[in-house]
Amino acid sequence: MPDKVIQVDLAGDVPAYQQIVNVLRTQFVAGAFQPGDQLPTVRQLAMDLGVHHNTVAEAYRLLAQEGWLDLRRGRGATIIARPNPPPSPEAESQFARRLDELTAKALAEGVEPATLAKQLDSLAGKLRGGGGR
Amino acid sequence: MPDKVIQVDLAGDVPAYQQIVNVLRTQFVAGAFQPGDQLPTVRQLAMDLGVHHNTVAEAYRLLAQEGWLDLRRGRGATIIARPNPPPSPEAESQFARRLDELTAKALAEGVEPATLAKQLDSLAGKLRGGGGR
Repeated sequence: MPDKVIQVDLAGDVPAYQQIVNVLRTQFVAGAFQPGDQLPTVRQLAMDLGVHHNTVAEAYRLLAQEGWLDLRRGRGATIIARPNPPPSPEAESQFARRLDELTAKALAEGVEPATLAKQLDSLAGKLRGGGGR
Repeated sequence: MPDKVIQVDLAGDVPAYQQIVNVLRTQFVAGAFQPGDQLPTVRQLAMDLGVHHNTVAEAYRLLAQEGWLDLRRGRGATIIARPNPPPSPEAESQFARRLDELTAKALAEGVEPATLAKQLDSLAGKLRGGGGR
């Protein structure tokens, strides 16, 4: 079962709502939840993370917009079955650009090129094995 | 010679100053500039990108903090020689986490796992060939 822990770094350069979106989306893609599963309520997750409840509400709203969640009033946030999206050349080129940026940042912060290459290999292997979806 | 084009996506989910930092850092790491080279002035780059000059000034300030730029008043932004930073386990685990998030986002947006794996392979090859630094 994939990890379901959410942590936010309030001092980081990624806004807290975006961090919550990123972590949850990664868990959804990894299959950590089934359609019908409930997420914690906005109030509960906000308390757990120590953030304003608007921050969690905004994250849930964005995830609902992406097709992952049903947010019917009074029912909390329910995972829904999301159809596979059509192929997107924009998403592909955005991935390439952000990957370059992420790698440059890690190199600038002193991570060895060989270490990064090993992580990239390992992820590529997982994607080929079908573990990435 | 690596690419020196900067573009910002004002509608994107990454703040404009952060996009400028990311693009310039990636160019610095790729060796697009030599110590002593000048960046465009804050005013000039802000005009070119159609952003407020505070946005560019903030990006330059962060890059100076990272050791890439000298911002002496009246001299503009000058590239300086930056010593290699010490290895950072935090940077390594942050890379791993962000890489997972980036990959999940691309999968969620319809990019094929095999396409992502190919991009990861190609980058890993460049890093091993010494082209990444």
